Amino acid sequence: MSLSPEILGLVQRLADASGTVIRRYFRTPIAVDDKADSSPVTIADREVEQTLRALITQAYPEHGIYGEEFGQTQCDAEYVWVIDPIDGTKSFITGKPLFGTLIALLHHGKPVLGVLDQPILRERWMGGVDLPTSLNTQAVKVRACADLSQAILYATSPHMFVKPEHVQGFANVRDSIKTPIYGGDCYAYALLATGFVDIVVEASLSPYDYCALVPIVENAGGIITDWQGQPLGLHSNGCVVAAGDARVHAQALEKLNWV
Amino acid sequence: MSLSPEILGLVQRLADASGTVIRRYFRTPIAVDDKADSSPVTIADREVEQTLRALITQAYPEHGIYGEEFGQTQCDAEYVWVIDPIDGTKSFITGKPLFGTLIALLHHGKPVLGVLDQPILRERWMGGVDLPTSLNTQAVKVRACADLSQAILYATSPHMFVKPEHVQGFANVRDSIKTPIYGGDCYAYALLATGFVDIVVEASLSPYDYCALVPIVENAGGIITDWQGQPLGLHSNGCVVAAGDARVHAQALEKLNWV
Repeated sequence: MSLSPEILGLVQRLADASGTVIRRYFRTPIAVDDKADSSPVTIADREVEQTLRALITQAYPEHGIYGEEFGQTQCDAEYVWVIDPIDGTKSFITGKPLFGTLIALLHHGKPVLGVLDQPILRERWMGGVDLPTSLNTQAVKVRACADLSQAILYATSPHMFVKPEHVQGFANVRDSIKTPIYGGDCYAYALLATGFVDIVVEASLSPYDYCALVPIVENAGGIITDWQGQPLGLHSNGCVVAAGDARVHAQALEKLNWV
Repeated sequence: MSLSPEILGLVQRLADASGTVIRRYFRTPIAVDDKADSSPVTIADREVEQTLRALITQAYPEHGIYGEEFGQTQCDAEYVWVIDPIDGTKSFITGKPLFGTLIALLHHGKPVLGVLDQPILRERWMGGVDLPTSLNTQAVKVRACADLSQAILYATSPHMFVKPEHVQGFANVRDSIKTPIYGGDCYAYALLATGFVDIVVEASLSPYDYCALVPIVENAGGIITDWQGQPLGLHSNGCVVAAGDARVHAQALEKLNWV
């Protein structure tokens, strides 16, 4: 499997199209609807996903699509696109430019290409098979961190840990690292891939929240798995741990699985 | 007391000078030192504050200065400048452009002018006596929010609430609002002043963390006080509650003072 120029061209067009829509709505008064899980959604989320779905279907009608707002279409296909039109909608609706559009391409269930586009800051991270991770075409890489006790950790919110074992697992890691920082959504993983953050530990995520981040983190030299150390895919349980250094990742897994 | 053109010119020069220094260091590999309270500090924090102190002393040798990194100089003066060179150093050192330079001018202890400058996004909020709050010279204002249950709340970190009564007070508010969002430092108050956030509740702050935010929030139509509803000044206890709507502020004070 290698990424064709056509695929790489399409993903750039998808990110461009997403940014055009989002910039039109950012910091404008738009209605915010509450979804069944009480997460917010706006016309911007929906319009971005509709735009991306149309562009993908036009180019590759045989590919599957799994998007946050409009669900799954032929997800048993060889290639499946996994899309979060706005990851960090709470940041978006409060005017904070730290959300991102996430676009992943999966081949036989494995994420092989990922893009994180931040359209206000005009920052685009991309990584994939034979495609070292870049920020606006400049190569980026993770940094070394020999020990968990020296690590800077990001997590979007303390409230994303709901099950008692997740609360305890996160607390074990948080009590072992140097500095915990909250907020960030997908942007925290991009900072990790760029060598400014050592570890991200999260839970309660969906496939569209992390599939694009897998190639971005891995092709910058990092590790990203579920809390058992297993590869992330459409059927993971929503727990994610990413680290720039394999030693920190291994130490975190021990803390997360303390039983 | 009115703000002279000379004062307003100086504060713009201070913010310009700060941004020039910070942009030189942002996302570059610089050493991070841990202060006595284990908060991080860098050469950028120190160089910004030294630069601003020099400019202030040159223009107004009789004014006092209170900065995060180099302490207090003649703070019994009629006019005192209160400076946080980089509020949100943890964001700064992790490459996240949500920190800000905070510059306040106090007259007889009362904050009469405030600037928040975000040099990467090139956003500058300013507000003061007879100076409606603006973002890059465009007037901004808070939004209405009739009830705490509909409010979007920001707090930089759950770990800033340390004393048991602060932990409980914050929990009371957090359990009463619609959506809690973490991270942001000073930027959360700027978003509140711009009408995208309803309430910010924080603790363990220092005067340089909030003095500049008082004129910015108040001259956008909002309210910002300590947790007892008292005006903020150099001798406040570090607990801050800001709201865009007086009704939300009053409801939050009740929750914070539940005893």
